[in-house]
This record gives sequence, C-alpha cells and structure tokens, in this order.
Amino acid sequence: MTRPAAPDPAAAAAPHHWLVRVYWEDTDAGGIVYYANYLKFFERARTEWLRRLGLQQQALREATGGMFVVGAAQVRYLHPARLDDQLLVETRIAALGRATLELEQTAQRMDPHGLTPICEGRVRIGWVQGADLRPARIPPAVLQALTQPDPATTPRR
Amino acid sequence: MTRPAAPDPAAAAAPHHWLVRVYWEDTDAGGIVYYANYLKFFERARTEWLRRLGLQQQALREATGGMFVVGAAQVRYLHPARLDDQLLVETRIAALGRATLELEQTAQRMDPHGLTPICEGRVRIGWVQGADLRPARIPPAVLQALTQPDPATTPRR
Amino acid sequence: MTRPAAPDPAAAAAPHHWLVRVYWEDTDAGGIVYYANYLKFFERARTEWLRRLGLQQQALREATGGMFVVGAAQVRYLHPARLDDQLLVETRIAALGRATLELEQTAQRMDPHGLTPICEGRVRIGWVQGADLRPARIPPAVLQALTQPDPATTPRR
Amino acid sequence: MTRPAAPDPAAAAAPHHWLVRVYWEDTDAGGIVYYANYLKFFERARTEWLRRLGLQQQALREATGGMFVVGAAQVRYLHPARLDDQLLVETRIAALGRATLELEQTAQRMDPHGLTPICEGRVRIGWVQGADLRPARIPPAVLQALTQPDPATTPRR
Repeated sequence: MTRPAAPDPAAAAAPHHWLVRVYWEDTDAGGIVYYANYLKFFERARTEWLRRLGLQQQALREATGGMFVVGAAQVRYLHPARLDDQLLVETRIAALGRATLELEQTAQRMDPHGLTPICEGRVRIGWVQGADLRPARIPPAVLQALTQPDPATTPRR
Repeated sequence: MTRPAAPDPAAAAAPHHWLVRVYWEDTDAGGIVYYANYLKFFERARTEWLRRLGLQQQALREATGGMFVVGAAQVRYLHPARLDDQLLVETRIAALGRATLELEQTAQRMDPHGLTPICEGRVRIGWVQGADLRPARIPPAVLQALTQPDPATTPRR
Repeated sequence: MTRPAAPDPAAAAAPHHWLVRVYWEDTDAGGIVYYANYLKFFERARTEWLRRLGLQQQALREATGGMFVVGAAQVRYLHPARLDDQLLVETRIAALGRATLELEQTAQRMDPHGLTPICEGRVRIGWVQGADLRPARIPPAVLQALTQPDPATTPRR
Repeated sequence: MTRPAAPDPAAAAAPHHWLVRVYWEDTDAGGIVYYANYLKFFERARTEWLRRLGLQQQALREATGGMFVVGAAQVRYLHPARLDDQLLVETRIAALGRATLELEQTAQRMDPHGLTPICEGRVRIGWVQGADLRPARIPPAVLQALTQPDPATTPRR
C-alpha cells in the first residue's frame, strides 16, 4: 500500500451520509429524541464513515492495539426529532492532526418536502493505546485511510 | 478463607432492596419507562446486592479472570412507571447452583401511600471465564459470599 | 375498509427480517452486547415489521389514540455478540388475540460462513388507550393489517 | 413567599453535588464509560438540583404546561471512568436569563485518596411550551426558585 507524500484533508473531507431511524428507545417523555442520543447517532455515523474508508474498529484494535476515543464534543439542538423520523447524519473532517481529528456532524430530518436541521455538532477524536488509553500518534495506515479519496466518489480509470 | 460445608441458599435469600429514580433518559415518547430499561434497573440492583455481599465485579474480574453474565431474563410489566417515580427494586436468590444462580427481582413504585407493583422478573446468571466467556464453576469465595448470612441483618454476638 | 371474516395468523406469521449493526453504544465493559440492548434490537425489528405491514406507530397513535405496549418479555442469551457484528433479527407472530399478540423474535449473527444464534425471545404486546394506558381491543384496521398476507411475499395476479 | 426584587444568580450559584455510580450499562467495549452517557449523568444531576430547589419536572409540566429542554451542550473528556467508579457531579449556574440558563457541570471520580477530574461540560437549557416546544419565558415561580438561596445552605434565624 503506497502512502501519499502528505495527508490531503480535502479528499477525505468529502462528506459522508448515514440514515438513522428514530425508535421508541431514542425518545423521552417529552415526546422528542433525548438529547444524549444524538451523540449515539453521531457515533454510529462515524463508525460507518470509518468502515467506508476501510477501517473496522474491532479489527483495528486487534491489529494495532489502539483505538479512537472522543476528547470533546459539542452539540447545538435546533429542532426536536420524534418517533419514526428519519435523520440524515452528515460527517466531515474539519481538521486532521497527527494524534487527533475534528469532525463536523449534523443531523437533518428527511421529509417528503425536504430537510430540516435537527442538530449540529463538532467532535474531537483522539487515538489512544488500548492498554492505558494514553494518547498516541494515529497509525500511518489509519492516517492514510482518513486522507485517501473516498473510494465511492473517486472516478476510476 | 474457609468454605461452608454446603451452600445455604436460605441465608443469602434474604431480599436486598435498592432505590432507583426514574429520569428523562429512562422514559419514552409514550410517557412511561421504556421496557428494556427495567433490565438496567435490575442489573443495578444486582450489582449493589453483590457489593453488599462484598463482591465488586471489576475487582472480581481482575482477581479471578471471570465474571457473571446473564443467561436468561424474563419480565412481566404490571403497571407503567413515569418520570420522577421512585422504584424500590427487590432482589432475592431463587436458586443457586455450581455455575449459575437464579434471581427473582421486582420493581415497585413508592408513593406516600404505599407500594405499587410495576414489574417483576427472573434472571439467570452464569459465571464465565473472561477470556472466552465459557461457562465455569462459580469460584469458592464468590459462592461463599453468596451464601453467607447478610452482614447487615445477622445479629452480632 | 373491509375486515376479513376471521383473522388468519398463518398469513402474517411469515417471518420478518431486519438487520441490526452493533455499535459502541450497544456494548459493555465485558466486551459484549449489554443484555438489555437486545430488547432494543427486538423493538426496532417490531417497529419495522409493523411499518412493513403499513402501521406507523406515531401516526397510529394520532389516528386511534392508542398504542402497543409490552406486557411481558423473555430472552435467552445463547452466544455473545460484539462490536461491529451484524445481527439478523427475525420476528414472527406466535399468537394473536383480540387485545394482545405474542411474538417470537431471534437474533442471529451473520458471518461470511453462516448464521450463529445469539439470543431468542418471546414478547407479548398489548394494545392500550394512550390516555390512561388501559388495555383495549386492537382496532380493526390494525388487526386486519396484522393478519393480511405480507405485501412483499404475496404472489400478485 | 416573598419574591426578591431582582433575580440573584449568586445565591442559586452555590454548587450542587450528586453522586453517580458507574454500572455495566454505562460502559462500552473499550472498558470505559461511553461518551454519551456523561450527558445522562449531567441530566440526572440537573434533575436532582431542580428537585432540591423544589422543582419537580413532571409536576411543573402539569402545572405550567412547559418544560426545560437542552439547547446546547459541550463536554470535554479528561480521564476515562470505569465500572464501579463513583462520580461526583457538580452543577452550578453560569448564566441566567429570562428564557434560558447556562449550567457548568463537572464529573470527578471519588477515590479514597481524592478526586480525579473525569469530564466537564456546559449545558444551555431553555424553557419551552409543552405543546409546540416553542421557547417561552421561564415562569416567575420557577425563576424565583432558581434564584433563591439554597434552602440547605442558608443559615436560619
């Protein structure tokens, strides 16, 4: 596997999309999605984004001994979502360093007539060693996957 | 540590009680506690019951390499619980074997005027090795703790 | 809307299948899916099964004032599931009455080489009035949907 | 009950403390508390802080038709927490307006030898009408409760 001369954040910054359905488990007695659960939706979307880039977290951990953990998260809640809603979660890299990356994530409700913004967040992810959870450099193969052009959107020759 | 000649289920069968408060996270859009969350309440009560018997699960795992896992659970939902309700969870041993134990657990709502049954369950717990999760005999020290008279209810001499 | 002379459990008993992916949120420190979360997976699958039959629960509640609630659940845990596993949840009607129905649900792990049984359960669902959560007869249109041949598996003429 | 001439944020800004125990349900396969669950812990602490000030949310909603919802949340994760840890959650008012309030919340692990910072957050809460979830002014009685001296820390004469 050849590695690009330098990481190219622009390539992997192509936004990734993932659909989440709202079930009973996600709602609360206010009739709306419980505020902590958007962090679950964001995490599912990040997992699927990584999978799309060829990174399976369980396999990564077995192969490298390390894993991603969240260092900081912020969310703004714009409109409530409700049971049976379908949410489109968008994930894109905002910044990429040697040991951390920052992601911008949004959830929008999909209706027949369009999209309604539900919430938007920013999540900082850091690579840690599995044993002691100490910060470490993102392994080269992982960094390469994060900066490669999206396999599905790259024109083939 | 000496081990009793034979486990005495009657002694440890003294019921254990634990209070659980219902928060927003526990409810769903039906305005009631989401049905899966009673299994969380039951698990919290089991954890506190074990702690009362001197068994810390994280420490147990480090000391013995094993842990308890649930093999079967059944729950009957009698009345709904709602936000801000206080639930009294009762735990008692129904059966105790060499590798598994069965617990009866109930949740009752505490009101100024008395108790209302909310749900009742039965949970089978088995001891497994941590590495491969294969069933194993409950370690003697654990078995002894499970069958000892409750330290708080035993008359002292 | 015409109603069949008698409910035909056999028709709706065609099993329904739904795929669930295991995310970090579903696992616990034992490295496996937390036991209560299978009830979430089962509920998602029931929701999708109802949707397939034309029943949207939020819309149902607005139209009829009633909803389904779980009256009893039992689960047997056969093998652990882990992060990144894909689970195939099967749902089928075991019994259908005027006010309740019983469903058999299983989760199996999908591997390249086949299916591994993870857990199996049985869930009793009852129809209740939304205001006071008192049991009530399942509305005719709902009962009809539950007993119709599956639209996707019925041969068309 | 007399009402102060003007809200006095300093009085209610006396920090509130609430203990949270980490159970299996809170952890993930990384062996640590799942990042979204700190928002649950923070919400439990806010609920108990309101209860201490005489505000029961279910009763509030029935009396006023309104409720608090979260408008924004941010969390920094400093150290991981694990199974059986006891976390001390501190809540204090950072800012109080006519329709929203901002809270600073932290979670610290309690050990025999002291406190370790686990995470710190800031949560913006807004008052909304229950029917349409539109922002509204915090009811006077609620605002008064939020600005009263803490009943437990005020010296009595």
